[in-house]
Amino acid sequence: MKTWLTVPTDSDFSIHNLPFGVFDAGDGQPRAGIAIGDHIVNLAAAAEAGLFGKRRFFKKLFEQPVLNDFIALGKPATNRIRRKVQDWLCLPERPENAAQILVDRRSVRMLLPIRIGDYTDFYSSIEHATNVGKMFRPDNPLLPNWRWLPVGYHGRSSSIVVDGTPIRRPHGQILPKGEEIPVFSATKQLDFELEMAFVIGKDSPLGQPVPVKKAEEYIFGLVLFNDWSARDIQRWEYVPLGPFLGKNFGSSMSPWIVPLEALKPFRVKGPKQSPPPLDYLKTTGARNLDIELEVAVQPENGPETVICRSNTRYLYWSMAQQLAHHTVNGCNLRVGDLLASGTISGPTPDSFGSLLELSWAGQKPIPLADGSTRTFLLDGDTLAIRGWARKDGLRVGFGEVGGTISA
Amino acid sequence: MKTWLTVPTDSDFSIHNLPFGVFDAGDGQPRAGIAIGDHIVNLAAAAEAGLFGKRRFFKKLFEQPVLNDFIALGKPATNRIRRKVQDWLCLPERPENAAQILVDRRSVRMLLPIRIGDYTDFYSSIEHATNVGKMFRPDNPLLPNWRWLPVGYHGRSSSIVVDGTPIRRPHGQILPKGEEIPVFSATKQLDFELEMAFVIGKDSPLGQPVPVKKAEEYIFGLVLFNDWSARDIQRWEYVPLGPFLGKNFGSSMSPWIVPLEALKPFRVKGPKQSPPPLDYLKTTGARNLDIELEVAVQPENGPETVICRSNTRYLYWSMAQQLAHHTVNGCNLRVGDLLASGTISGPTPDSFGSLLELSWAGQKPIPLADGSTRTFLLDGDTLAIRGWARKDGLRVGFGEVGGTISA
Repeated sequence: MKTWLTVPTDSDFSIHNLPFGVFDAGDGQPRAGIAIGDHIVNLAAAAEAGLFGKRRFFKKLFEQPVLNDFIALGKPATNRIRRKVQDWLCLPERPENAAQILVDRRSVRMLLPIRIGDYTDFYSSIEHATNVGKMFRPDNPLLPNWRWLPVGYHGRSSSIVVDGTPIRRPHGQILPKGEEIPVFSATKQLDFELEMAFVIGKDSPLGQPVPVKKAEEYIFGLVLFNDWSARDIQRWEYVPLGPFLGKNFGSSMSPWIVPLEALKPFRVKGPKQSPPPLDYLKTTGARNLDIELEVAVQPENGPETVICRSNTRYLYWSMAQQLAHHTVNGCNLRVGDLLASGTISGPTPDSFGSLLELSWAGQKPIPLADGSTRTFLLDGDTLAIRGWARKDGLRVGFGEVGGTISA
Repeated sequence: MKTWLTVPTDSDFSIHNLPFGVFDAGDGQPRAGIAIGDHIVNLAAAAEAGLFGKRRFFKKLFEQPVLNDFIALGKPATNRIRRKVQDWLCLPERPENAAQILVDRRSVRMLLPIRIGDYTDFYSSIEHATNVGKMFRPDNPLLPNWRWLPVGYHGRSSSIVVDGTPIRRPHGQILPKGEEIPVFSATKQLDFELEMAFVIGKDSPLGQPVPVKKAEEYIFGLVLFNDWSARDIQRWEYVPLGPFLGKNFGSSMSPWIVPLEALKPFRVKGPKQSPPPLDYLKTTGARNLDIELEVAVQPENGPETVICRSNTRYLYWSMAQQLAHHTVNGCNLRVGDLLASGTISGPTPDSFGSLLELSWAGQKPIPLADGSTRTFLLDGDTLAIRGWARKDGLRVGFGEVGGTISA
């Protein structure tokens, strides 16, 4: 595939990617778009130009503030739109309507692209679960259920924000070490969690499990995800019902949803599962993805330092298994639901996906390029997660999800 | 206050109540209504008849499938509508437009009245937390954080259904007693949880805590709530991140939202809190509610048995405290969010709000009127929760939330 548009080499948004997002070009009117290089295909303008047929229907659809109704059309329809845009970008020469349809990507503000009904966070990296387990429960790091099911819990959808949204340091109850009476304080252990998340593309009815073999039909696409965490608040509150205020002050997602179809070349097998999963979780073939991930921290007025390099392929439980497990009891899914992976840690210390693990609960300060160190995040720090897949000259990336900590 | 309409004595829906709901009178068009005795005030018809002014605006508003936009108008507006209806019902004589505005309550199907953004479940009954703690953690029933903060967790909003919706017995992983390998099975410990829940009536911005003194401004009204639970699934999955598939196969709410204002006469002080709560949770005055609750189980083709009588006043943490805690880290609320109390158990064994407690984890079968017994629910059982407040001849009730178990 070759486009007439100049796409920078190593752009995340190659002609093979074409992810969906929602942008505001400055007039306050949200519009759906597809990213290509340093540009955006304005889908509302493309609809108006007749690229998809049914001009009025698609223009209206692409002027909605979120992609839910578009996604709900189903994969045949959304893939058709993506192919039409790909065809247009690969015309023999730059078409006359290019100026009308293309937008400079650097001139827009990206918006949260979906209305998220329910947000679920899994805990699917065995390295992460083992690391955290060692700190919170030294005698019992990996709990007996972990290898039998993709442990997950419900998160808060109201506080999911898009890349670039500042994150306010949360206050809450903290139990000082060795004390029995909690204090009220700003968190002193503000952390990130390196995750990926997938967007549900098809409703499933209440009471009807989705078989693991059909699970991928329900996945529209993927984003980068940061499940910001306040470890001291979390530690005091989390028994027996799980994390709550230590997490729900904010989570960040990248603005471009990469369709599952664009990631086909990067499929890999996951880690061997032992014991073998129960029947409803059994899969064959390449169900994991080879997506390189990095995390960078940038102090206020300082240069950034990459503090973690990991890969989605390390995940023990696949998306298909997470989805099959989530619905096996009849729990229903709705278009726009977000299911996140949990922190993606790899086997080596530089691949751990949270400061809790990287600094080993604050015991090993992490050196930054400006000479300072971090155990947890400081006010003014900007934390960015990036992710991309590469193979045989193809590159399909996610851009980044970042946020700056404010007091 | 006296209405020209015949309202049965002891109706939950007295002239002092006037709760809001959404009904379908058989034509597939959802309409907002206010319950009064055995009737419903069709708010769309009342708007058309000019009861509220701005006919077109209100008619359109009351023909929406959910009350969110109406609730978002704010308490001055929603209370004004309620007062206008009350005035109309208390005219000196039956008005000519009565036939056009009133609907027979027994002839309609009630719908889920709100689009629930996020659903949070608390754990605010000290009796329930202690009872369950004794079974799950005999050495450590009430965890150290419990008296310091209203423990809560996020639930699933997609599977919240309205009264009357059948509940399908969920399947999932269960660890048989004494075994190390889980089996896949239908739950053998299907339970109810007697709860109340409140509906958020006002958005709060991300990053801005709601002070406990202002918390009630954010509460639109209350419903009865059943947090169906599969205990065996829950027991195996819940560490370390909390309940998931043991809960999210379904939760049921009553269809009529009783405005907080209607419950003013029934305010009472809550239990003494010891230790005294931290400043951000300190309240004065009567913040609890005296609402009588009962739970009845009815086998297929059999008579029903009331198996529990409890009262909302037992709750240790008040709604104002739950809401202040939920937002103290900056977590934002949205109109239509649902915050549930957790199981409301009282001090005596007949006031326990779940079968887990009533049957003491299955050890004490509960006799039913038809001669059978229950430890947990069987297929074909109908479980109903009812609630009402009474004082000085006033009665304000919630109707009921029921559901039948199917295989």
